[in-house]
Amino acid sequence: MIEELAISTKGKNAFIDVTSEVEKAVTGLRVKSGVCIIFVPHTTAALTINENADSSVRSDIINALKNVVPDSGGYLHAEGNSPAHVKASLFGNSLTIPVENGSLRLGTWQGIYLCEFDGPRTRKIIIKVLNG
Amino acid sequence: MIEELAISTKGKNAFIDVTSEVEKAVTGLRVKSGVCIIFVPHTTAALTINENADSSVRSDIINALKNVVPDSGGYLHAEGNSPAHVKASLFGNSLTIPVENGSLRLGTWQGIYLCEFDGPRTRKIIIKVLNG
Amino acid sequence: MIEELAISTKGKNAFIDVTSEVEKAVTGLRVKSGVCIIFVPHTTAALTINENADSSVRSDIINALKNVVPDSGGYLHAEGNSPAHVKASLFGNSLTIPVENGSLRLGTWQGIYLCEFDGPRTRKIIIKVLNG
Repeated sequence: MIEELAISTKGKNAFIDVTSEVEKAVTGLRVKSGVCIIFVPHTTAALTINENADSSVRSDIINALKNVVPDSGGYLHAEGNSPAHVKASLFGNSLTIPVENGSLRLGTWQGIYLCEFDGPRTRKIIIKVLNG
Repeated sequence: MIEELAISTKGKNAFIDVTSEVEKAVTGLRVKSGVCIIFVPHTTAALTINENADSSVRSDIINALKNVVPDSGGYLHAEGNSPAHVKASLFGNSLTIPVENGSLRLGTWQGIYLCEFDGPRTRKIIIKVLNG
Repeated sequence: MIEELAISTKGKNAFIDVTSEVEKAVTGLRVKSGVCIIFVPHTTAALTINENADSSVRSDIINALKNVVPDSGGYLHAEGNSPAHVKASLFGNSLTIPVENGSLRLGTWQGIYLCEFDGPRTRKIIIKVLNG
């Protein structure tokens, strides 16, 4: 009861809607009631749930994060992607969502987003569903 | 093994202690050992675990968050609640807590808080307990 | 299927690599496939997953967090550790990691860190593995 997806990201910072991919995986795993866990095995990407209607919300979040963790700021790590590492830890690399009647129990305005902070790249998402 | 609660919030930003409500739900679901998942189906509210004794800690957290994500800052989203969306993603919309001997395995100083960032409103909390 | 560890931290702010301790606990709990939950029962410490190779990434994260939540800033809480409480909620006090073939399904560069924000202290980590 595990599924792995590959997602291509565009741009340095981007939020990619993966709601339908996760829904499809959950349906395929055929768990009627339980919990869905989504996990990214990366350290400069994250996962979040946020507004699925107006895309300007995602732009506002990306811009707000740039103010919280500036692109340049005397970082020690030589690869230059320290801000991406900080953002990844602030947002977190997993989500936990209840499953009811075989589908995700998301709110009306909730979408699931893969947060790319050091793209463009191909990222993995691991989806696991537990019965219960 | 799922329960849903409605919580009324007061003020624009507020932390509401829901520890006893969650404890009661866990007791009602009669799981001796496992994991409790708490989930808010909203995009301008969040959940966190923090100090349950001195309420000034919550005030300090709310104020610190206002410095991190200012109320006004050239946001694009027309509804004016972009800061609430950013805070929701920073804190996250779910919690996972071990269950032992039929109750939550919280630390002495830990309380569970619903974080309202765009209130006042009536919010939902979904509580799920997995055996294990 | 629960394990508890004690971890001694050094310094006020420190990230302690607990990956091998968690791996060992998961192996000991003998779950072939499922989900590992790690939980800290504290309110001024947190858990995160981030880069396990270059230790300067951890220094950059600690320093970036000090800019996000300054050490002094008119906090109300008399104990003086309000910044630690804010950081704990920003990072979160639990992690959820898939388990496959009896071990953690971490990415190549991922390590598990206990984040001390108000040390030095002895901290507890609770590790739980669910079958599934």
